[in-house]
Amino acid sequence: MKYFRLSLILLFIGFATAAFCQDIKKQNMKKTHKVVVQVTEGDSLTQLAVIGQVRNIKKQLPDAQVEVVCHANSLDMLLKSGSKVGSHIAELKPLGVRFVACENTMARKKATAADLVPGAETVPSGLVEIILKQEEGWSYIKGGH
Amino acid sequence: MKYFRLSLILLFIGFATAAFCQDIKKQNMKKTHKVVVQVTEGDSLTQLAVIGQVRNIKKQLPDAQVEVVCHANSLDMLLKSGSKVGSHIAELKPLGVRFVACENTMARKKATAADLVPGAETVPSGLVEIILKQEEGWSYIKGGH
Amino acid sequence: MKYFRLSLILLFIGFATAAFCQDIKKQNMKKTHKVVVQVTEGDSLTQLAVIGQVRNIKKQLPDAQVEVVCHANSLDMLLKSGSKVGSHIAELKPLGVRFVACENTMARKKATAADLVPGAETVPSGLVEIILKQEEGWSYIKGGH
Repeated sequence: MKYFRLSLILLFIGFATAAFCQDIKKQNMKKTHKVVVQVTEGDSLTQLAVIGQVRNIKKQLPDAQVEVVCHANSLDMLLKSGSKVGSHIAELKPLGVRFVACENTMARKKATAADLVPGAETVPSGLVEIILKQEEGWSYIKGGH
Repeated sequence: MKYFRLSLILLFIGFATAAFCQDIKKQNMKKTHKVVVQVTEGDSLTQLAVIGQVRNIKKQLPDAQVEVVCHANSLDMLLKSGSKVGSHIAELKPLGVRFVACENTMARKKATAADLVPGAETVPSGLVEIILKQEEGWSYIKGGH
Repeated sequence: MKYFRLSLILLFIGFATAAFCQDIKKQNMKKTHKVVVQVTEGDSLTQLAVIGQVRNIKKQLPDAQVEVVCHANSLDMLLKSGSKVGSHIAELKPLGVRFVACENTMARKKATAADLVPGAETVPSGLVEIILKQEEGWSYIKGGH
């Protein structure tokens, strides 16, 4: 009888330990592909190249979450006045591709949310966004060409 | 007698737990230095700079695994017609430095495997390769200058 | 009595396991934001942009540790003869922002420690520094514009 109770306790410890460690293992594994793409240049060729790069990523990794961070000169890509790829930004959004503008850059260029193409979002700082995403396990890529 | 058996069981649980957790710790530690290098430009100076960068990495970290991903204009670096550093690519391969061309870029530039310098390999997508390597714990560097 | 001793042993195993695994969990968590910034260009605009980027990071993440790695042409940023931002480098140091010059680049440009602006430090290889920091869990950003 006492061995029965003892073995129950031991079994419980074993399961609890296994469950606990498994939990850590899972945290280390990636379920979804996540990538933050930094863009700093804003000329037409770079804008088109970035759209092509994002589409290539989604073609091979359809479930990937992609966030394109536009700061410095690449803000143009998200401004109604400067974007050559505005339609793509709205079109890619429901597929899991977010385009975000750096509010530091916007302030410097005196742009407001109303100046952005439909679908574009903002983050307080483009660089800090890239830091935080990497801390959450996202891969990082310098986009453009 | 019963304490002897009991202590054997406890000892086993202890060892099993330690081994299990140690296993996770090892997965978190890096045994080999691994780095994926992104190159996007293809001019002669960039090509030479990349070779110099790879050699500097191998000088300080002789066991490092290095993978140089050439996409966009940097495909030239791996094309027989455009490479200024073809001999280096074959020479560095046995030292653990792989040069891979992006098949998306190759398709766009109508290049085939036969057009590549000896030793060069290909990957379906240069950017996806960089994402996957980071997911496996590789460091990432934007190469060139 | 024997159950008392037994439960003490079991309790000890339980605590030891929990402590051990917790220790691993903590290693996976980031307490401080850490970012290594790569700079490769050395023109005045890039130099000023990098200082602005670092200040923006520190504004939003005041406790962040930042290391700016200057190699290739960006060595100018840390040379007395070429730096337009020398005063910022000394000023930012006590705030947790280190500027380090690549000794490989210094050797190539025949610069010595005496040629560096006050506060600048050196690392054997800029690229290897970026690899090692990422292995230690630092985020990585390509700086400049």
